[in-house]
Amino acid sequence: MSSDTATAPPPVDEISALVLKDSKEATFSQRVLIKTIVSRDDGGAGLAGEVVRVGGWVKTGREQGKGSFAFLELNDGSCPANLQVIVDAAVAPLAQLVQTGTCVHVEGEIKLPPEGTKQKIELRVRKVLDIGPVDPAKYPLPKTKLTLEFLRDFMHLRSRTNTISAVARIRNALAFATHTFFQKHNFLYVHTPIITTSDCEGAGEMFQVTTLINESERIEKELITNPPPSEADVEAAKLIVKEKGEAVAQLKSAKASKVEITAAVAELSKSKENLAKIEERSKLKPGLPKKDGKIDYSQDFFARQAFLTVSGQLQVETYACALSSVYTFGPTFRAENSHTTRHLAEFWMVEPEIAFADIQDDMNCAEAYVKFMCQWLLDNCFDDMEFMVKTFDKAAIDRLRLVASSNFKRITYTEAIAILEEAIAKENKQFENAVEWGIDLASEHERFLTDVKFKSPVIVYNYPKGIKAFYMKVNPDNKTVAAMDVLVPKVGELIGGSQREERYEVLKERILEMGLPIEPYEWYLDLRRFGSVKHSGFGLGFERMILFATGIDNIRDVIPFPRYPGRADL
Amino acid sequence: MSSDTATAPPPVDEISALVLKDSKEATFSQRVLIKTIVSRDDGGAGLAGEVVRVGGWVKTGREQGKGSFAFLELNDGSCPANLQVIVDAAVAPLAQLVQTGTCVHVEGEIKLPPEGTKQKIELRVRKVLDIGPVDPAKYPLPKTKLTLEFLRDFMHLRSRTNTISAVARIRNALAFATHTFFQKHNFLYVHTPIITTSDCEGAGEMFQVTTLINESERIEKELITNPPPSEADVEAAKLIVKEKGEAVAQLKSAKASKVEITAAVAELSKSKENLAKIEERSKLKPGLPKKDGKIDYSQDFFARQAFLTVSGQLQVETYACALSSVYTFGPTFRAENSHTTRHLAEFWMVEPEIAFADIQDDMNCAEAYVKFMCQWLLDNCFDDMEFMVKTFDKAAIDRLRLVASSNFKRITYTEAIAILEEAIAKENKQFENAVEWGIDLASEHERFLTDVKFKSPVIVYNYPKGIKAFYMKVNPDNKTVAAMDVLVPKVGELIGGSQREERYEVLKERILEMGLPIEPYEWYLDLRRFGSVKHSGFGLGFERMILFATGIDNIRDVIPFPRYPGRADL
Repeated sequence: MSSDTATAPPPVDEISALVLKDSKEATFSQRVLIKTIVSRDDGGAGLAGEVVRVGGWVKTGREQGKGSFAFLELNDGSCPANLQVIVDAAVAPLAQLVQTGTCVHVEGEIKLPPEGTKQKIELRVRKVLDIGPVDPAKYPLPKTKLTLEFLRDFMHLRSRTNTISAVARIRNALAFATHTFFQKHNFLYVHTPIITTSDCEGAGEMFQVTTLINESERIEKELITNPPPSEADVEAAKLIVKEKGEAVAQLKSAKASKVEITAAVAELSKSKENLAKIEERSKLKPGLPKKDGKIDYSQDFFARQAFLTVSGQLQVETYACALSSVYTFGPTFRAENSHTTRHLAEFWMVEPEIAFADIQDDMNCAEAYVKFMCQWLLDNCFDDMEFMVKTFDKAAIDRLRLVASSNFKRITYTEAIAILEEAIAKENKQFENAVEWGIDLASEHERFLTDVKFKSPVIVYNYPKGIKAFYMKVNPDNKTVAAMDVLVPKVGELIGGSQREERYEVLKERILEMGLPIEPYEWYLDLRRFGSVKHSGFGLGFERMILFATGIDNIRDVIPFPRYPGRADL
Repeated sequence: MSSDTATAPPPVDEISALVLKDSKEATFSQRVLIKTIVSRDDGGAGLAGEVVRVGGWVKTGREQGKGSFAFLELNDGSCPANLQVIVDAAVAPLAQLVQTGTCVHVEGEIKLPPEGTKQKIELRVRKVLDIGPVDPAKYPLPKTKLTLEFLRDFMHLRSRTNTISAVARIRNALAFATHTFFQKHNFLYVHTPIITTSDCEGAGEMFQVTTLINESERIEKELITNPPPSEADVEAAKLIVKEKGEAVAQLKSAKASKVEITAAVAELSKSKENLAKIEERSKLKPGLPKKDGKIDYSQDFFARQAFLTVSGQLQVETYACALSSVYTFGPTFRAENSHTTRHLAEFWMVEPEIAFADIQDDMNCAEAYVKFMCQWLLDNCFDDMEFMVKTFDKAAIDRLRLVASSNFKRITYTEAIAILEEAIAKENKQFENAVEWGIDLASEHERFLTDVKFKSPVIVYNYPKGIKAFYMKVNPDNKTVAAMDVLVPKVGELIGGSQREERYEVLKERILEMGLPIEPYEWYLDLRRFGSVKHSGFGLGFERMILFATGIDNIRDVIPFPRYPGRADL
């Protein structure tokens, strides 16, 4: 893979024209995308006279002219705008077509509407190819405005709403922007593992992955239908082995024929096999398998305890220490019993890792990446962003423009504390959480820096080592580590990163200092033992980026299938 | 996101020239990529005289001229080729530099080597910026050729080898090709859930995700240090509640002062709280929580039994039935006790789903996608493919060319059976597995079709419904379903897909026919109840595609961190 494989896309209308020109149907499906008609600069007017097939779901429909024809607002998810479709009563049963949620697949002619109407184009249907009807009495998503909270009970249908489909397009755009950005800069995409045996920091907040429960239930059932052998059964089987053994010995000492001895030996091994089986079954017990009072994970699928990953960082470092610039983009998990609007049990993270890079390079990369995503949305999702501005957050587009165009303010943690202290002393600013060197910045502090003091994204770096992870590079002052957080308006911390400690001795000391065991980190220490390299990286919470972009308040609404305590629908 | 956002990249040398021109360092790290020097058309010769910084790991090194200088073959993972680096003894300690695995970060001048040497370019070092040394006595990856099997014990270091790093680049290229293909065709990338509560087909082969074991161990520990209350404790607490209640009643009937009554009521509620706590603690038992003899999953994190997904298909269908053309690309899991070279417990799948598309559209999409990936590798990873041809599979490049350029042969299952039967009858072909209408094709049958009969990829479609899943569209013959498998040389089945049954009644009947419960599929049936749409999709095993491309034999070597029975390193 080489760099610059993906460049900025040509304007939507050019592509649309091409798609329409090449064929009357979207590739691999029997229709053109509604976006290729309505998202043109001319609103589709230049296509008047063309005959096309479209498919989609009716947003609203109404019969007109005493039931002689119907207007349908048709949406196929390719863009926020609907296509106005007109069907004559002679063509299809209108009462069925006009119901919200109905799927229709039609062929028709693109026409200019009468002057004075707001549509620039409409589709006059010649043939209805297919209808997927809806019984409005039973359909859970009526035309009325529904709250996002209400929609969370209809996980399988909520993508049919304007908001959730706009979020889906923005999410898709940010994901592709992510790949484009890193590929362009020659980073290799590495799939770090989902199931892990190595994150041993916070096992309490990790989901366990196991086949033990399933297996123990299987055994429990088995033992009910087929009880385990008693001790007497085992003794009896042992006796048989003894007898058969003696028989062999006798035959041998009696110099019996080879045939006789072979037969006796065969019987002996059969009795031994039988004993082994009986002994094994006699050990079967209901419940999870135990050894020395602890659960015996040697019997689990991976022969040890396994968890869902909380971050791909440590693993992706093994690739950075060989392939230089890499990134991972995948799901991560936290079993925290957290019910906030900012936390999920399953969420996606983007984690680049760069060899021959220090904390300054890391900040440069983080800033460029966030700016790239903001500009990408402005260039590629403007209609969806306009919807967000209209519906959720007036400032959403301005925020993207601000971040895409302004340099991120960079201050050290020590400077950040001084700024907060000054605000308290000179401006009588009140914070709920005390401010002093050594604290973890609370979100009220972060908000003050981004929203009040600098009115721009802020990168805070060089944090006290006491509040940061063991793998972060200790600075020469021996008090701080080369860590950095990117704070943005609206969501606060968007990115956390650091230069990694590449010195073997220092890293080992830090692990011990934190009270962590060395053994599970031996492989991580190996990266410093052999050909160690200065390297840095960061993690971006992908859903936080979507919250930042859209202005939506609850993280449960920006991931297709949210998982949180008590809920994992579908 | 609009279509055609990513087009074929400009030639590597153009980009390289640009990168070098713009800055002397790779973006976000303090060096230029070795690829930008050695992968130019002129092999780097045009850069003679330029001063650059590079970083990488020493593949091989040797001291020359009686220790007056050293040659290093330096690789930074950006391409398979090494850069030849020359260091004078005056610049750095050579004995340390020449060890295989050493990390070096240097500044030097690009020079034309003396005529007659095989390199087109070399780097004459002026300054050594950093060294990450290696003790050759301890380094597990010596210069000698190591087997892939051996390397599986060094998961954290194996990406430093030629083979695993070439696989990493090919894997990265195929992942980006995948996104590029689907984005280009206006598909939206949807993140389907990893943790699922809805795949109820084969729970036996699914990994369970739980916090119950952790929680039960916590309780067990707790009960040892702090034994649960006895029945007598509970009774005593109940008695206190009774007394406090009576006290309140007495004060009320005695018309005592408000202050007195309030105080007594407060004491009553305190005693009630205490009782509730004691009763709850008295219920604590070691082991997993049970209710009616079964494990009580209402106490698990998601308040029900949860698993790792085996496929994102059913969930991504909810998005296809709203946004028309979508795809998912993520990890999937099987807890099969399978020790073959073709199975992993954790693997990645690409699953597009297309509305208004039938089985023909589905086959068109699958064929175009596979061809696109093959051409992408030829265009973007040719040097890595040459390495594969040299090392693993002479036919690897020819295979890509064949697939990229030839039309896939399409035959029905019934035709496939006829072809196999004819081969048996007329050519005396012997198969281990009997051939008759209704069987699942074995890999020997598939291989016969791709490698012997057609010498090209083959798509077999319209399979007997008895051997396929419930959600596949029943054909008018009522005997077959609109399913299709893409078979390719070398790996056999690469893709499996189908048109989905969009008729509510037929789908429901199929679920019942298969002996599956209806309730867990109600949401899936809803997609057919409300605005149902003709739709189709398929799944491609991403690691199989890499096996196909590289010619590597074992699937454990084409994923960065393989998971299989007994192993989940890192």
